[in-house]
Amino acid sequence: MDFFFNPKGIAVLGATVNEIRGGFSILKNLQHGFSGNIYPVNPHYSEIEGLPCFVDISQVPDPLDMAILFVPAPVTPDVVQACVARGLPGVIIQSAGFSETGEKGRKLQDQLTEISRRTGIRIWGPNCMGLVDAVHKRVFSFISPSIWDEGLLPGDISLIVQSGMLSAGFLIDTMTRDKLGISKVCSIGNKVDVNECDILEYLLTDPDTSVVGLYLESMAEGRRFFEICKSAKKPIVLLQGGKSKEGSRAAMSHTASMAGNSAIVRGAMDQAGVIQANDFKQMMDFSRTLSLYPKKGMRCPGRIAIVTFSGGAGIVSTDLLDRHGLVLADLSSNTLKSLESVFPEWMPANNPVDLWPAIERVGLDKAYEQTIHAVCADPGVDAVFLHAFAGGLIWQLKLKPVIETAQKAGKPIFLWLIGNERDSLRFEKEAREIKVPVFREISRAVESMATIFS
Amino acid sequence: MDFFFNPKGIAVLGATVNEIRGGFSILKNLQHGFSGNIYPVNPHYSEIEGLPCFVDISQVPDPLDMAILFVPAPVTPDVVQACVARGLPGVIIQSAGFSETGEKGRKLQDQLTEISRRTGIRIWGPNCMGLVDAVHKRVFSFISPSIWDEGLLPGDISLIVQSGMLSAGFLIDTMTRDKLGISKVCSIGNKVDVNECDILEYLLTDPDTSVVGLYLESMAEGRRFFEICKSAKKPIVLLQGGKSKEGSRAAMSHTASMAGNSAIVRGAMDQAGVIQANDFKQMMDFSRTLSLYPKKGMRCPGRIAIVTFSGGAGIVSTDLLDRHGLVLADLSSNTLKSLESVFPEWMPANNPVDLWPAIERVGLDKAYEQTIHAVCADPGVDAVFLHAFAGGLIWQLKLKPVIETAQKAGKPIFLWLIGNERDSLRFEKEAREIKVPVFREISRAVESMATIFS
Repeated sequence: MDFFFNPKGIAVLGATVNEIRGGFSILKNLQHGFSGNIYPVNPHYSEIEGLPCFVDISQVPDPLDMAILFVPAPVTPDVVQACVARGLPGVIIQSAGFSETGEKGRKLQDQLTEISRRTGIRIWGPNCMGLVDAVHKRVFSFISPSIWDEGLLPGDISLIVQSGMLSAGFLIDTMTRDKLGISKVCSIGNKVDVNECDILEYLLTDPDTSVVGLYLESMAEGRRFFEICKSAKKPIVLLQGGKSKEGSRAAMSHTASMAGNSAIVRGAMDQAGVIQANDFKQMMDFSRTLSLYPKKGMRCPGRIAIVTFSGGAGIVSTDLLDRHGLVLADLSSNTLKSLESVFPEWMPANNPVDLWPAIERVGLDKAYEQTIHAVCADPGVDAVFLHAFAGGLIWQLKLKPVIETAQKAGKPIFLWLIGNERDSLRFEKEAREIKVPVFREISRAVESMATIFS
Repeated sequence: MDFFFNPKGIAVLGATVNEIRGGFSILKNLQHGFSGNIYPVNPHYSEIEGLPCFVDISQVPDPLDMAILFVPAPVTPDVVQACVARGLPGVIIQSAGFSETGEKGRKLQDQLTEISRRTGIRIWGPNCMGLVDAVHKRVFSFISPSIWDEGLLPGDISLIVQSGMLSAGFLIDTMTRDKLGISKVCSIGNKVDVNECDILEYLLTDPDTSVVGLYLESMAEGRRFFEICKSAKKPIVLLQGGKSKEGSRAAMSHTASMAGNSAIVRGAMDQAGVIQANDFKQMMDFSRTLSLYPKKGMRCPGRIAIVTFSGGAGIVSTDLLDRHGLVLADLSSNTLKSLESVFPEWMPANNPVDLWPAIERVGLDKAYEQTIHAVCADPGVDAVFLHAFAGGLIWQLKLKPVIETAQKAGKPIFLWLIGNERDSLRFEKEAREIKVPVFREISRAVESMATIFS
């Protein structure tokens, strides 16, 4: 599988000068970030974008270990056959027009399956967006080259997505809105040969990946998938599409393993330690949480200390802990004693800790720092849920020392943030830099917190 | 109650020149937006911010029908007594230091209760942020005057919030981030006299309010609240704090009506037609939805047409419909026939409608417009869930005609939007202007959709 991710040379079959075609985008994306050899292949051109263009794959020189196909569906079997003859170990077919379009396409797809089985060539796709690797700046995809303008923020979360449009759209949305760093996004399409198991196995050994998130509409090899997840040393988050009866009909899933067996899949995934999500953003929130706090030997149910600036937010947080199987930590008498130094006598602290009286007595930073210090030293506290407000004269909290106190104590800390938009964005940026998961909604924070205690 | 919302003259007891004190902020906020008479009262000054300052309330001339108190808790009973003597119908006490601080404060609060009962003066508070009215630009609150810089976007959603810090913080967050228009925000504090029932009754007859959202930690008069909700002609959304055992302990609720009886409250609220939320943002999402689509005679369960650019998003949406008690509409043969004009023969449309093949055939705008037209004409479709992507060369969807088609057909339409941040913000702004509820998460959209069919 490594040649898909680290090829020395790539041929682009279906490369073109027509800027609105995928074969052009693939080439531009390779030129932008890929440092290996790039070989456009198209009999109609002798040169594309400054690169010599080849008549067919047999003419392409070494080093060459992978081809990306963006040619009309009906000719793909012949083109793949030619790639076999050229000695290629694998191809990514990004063209559409296969089983997703009905009987005729299904027959074409069956031909690809047959070629792969017979010759051993690995086929990724068809009907997929290919691969985006934000760490190594490799975009092996017909995704619009405008993606480079969006930043491609590198991170350690990798995704496997069985939906082309979605993987691209979602990637752009995530990167530009949530500023979430990504390692590899693998769009697997119709899975004629390479499937989620192959890629998951690869990512679990990939040093640039610490968490894998998957969106799947079908499972090609249920048992194998279960075994891989069960023995995985990295957290895995799954969003399963087609869980409901109507959803599975919509997925028109042809694999019996998933459709209609949602409860079984859910149970097996629980057993395998897979975290399950219901929506895309939730999948990303869970992945981000687990990349920061890999759940290792966490006590269950997790005992949470809430440190807030608002009694009301503390109460709603407590309700939501209950809803997600977490409990409010009982603060020890030592902790309560140590909080006495910042809280006024008339308002002794308890969990949820409403900081307001302490802020009035000793100021914002001292109230936050001493409180976090005290609750993090408490052996009865497994994680901290910190609330902060961004903006306003008195609300210039120094976040870093507060977070570092929790990090030094080895206590996972989660931040809920509200405030005016300008200050919140600055605050969020700082939170990301010092690696604390930050949420704008209490429920989002609590459900993410719950994943490390599941 | 109207004198609280539409006073001719307001006295500020505890007005001061000290900029970091609440008594200064109250005055500045009044000067900024209130067109009635403003009377600072403080024996230490003869003038504050250009206004003549009075020694005590007895000296203040007419017109005067309301006072805001920001004086130390121990003197409030005497000051309220003086307001009674001056003939005031009501006061808003924003000072803290009452039952929320223990026994001594509780005794002070009991004195206020006694004065109100004996004399009939209406007391709003204590320990509250007062009132913000974004439509009439009235801020009767010690909230930081920087709130004026944030915009105070007027709208038709009013809130009743039993948590001062939260009402202020949340207001700023909502206004600057979600750009959600607000009518009145009423922070009710310790509810010594004026409670949620009094204010809810007022808001239900307020022409500037079309939906009321409440965050409550206790119910002062459960039966009365139920009756008001049951006969209400406007939608009501409730976020109840202290639903869980630990949450209700945290709320230290002294009213038996709510604490520990969460299931009973929930059942009663369902019966009264109140929509219940679990988090602040959800409360706002529900309120926004109901302000746009007041649920009137909606068929249950709601039958939804999904119109998407991504098969995967359509499938996840279908799963989430099922989760929230909605169903996928069966499109009529007429509708399917009419879709044939934009969909390619090899890919006939069905619900969820994946537009991609149609976009490739007839272009973005025509594919969207014709499809929305067809599904909105279908009597078996109760609402439409539209997916859009913002950004990229081919993704400049003209939103307005699409939405207008649904609006003309009288079908509620909900928009899920992803895309790059820049284009998404522009798109969201447009969606707000043409009054379509827009969401960045599928689950958020679906749970809001469910409120109009509940």
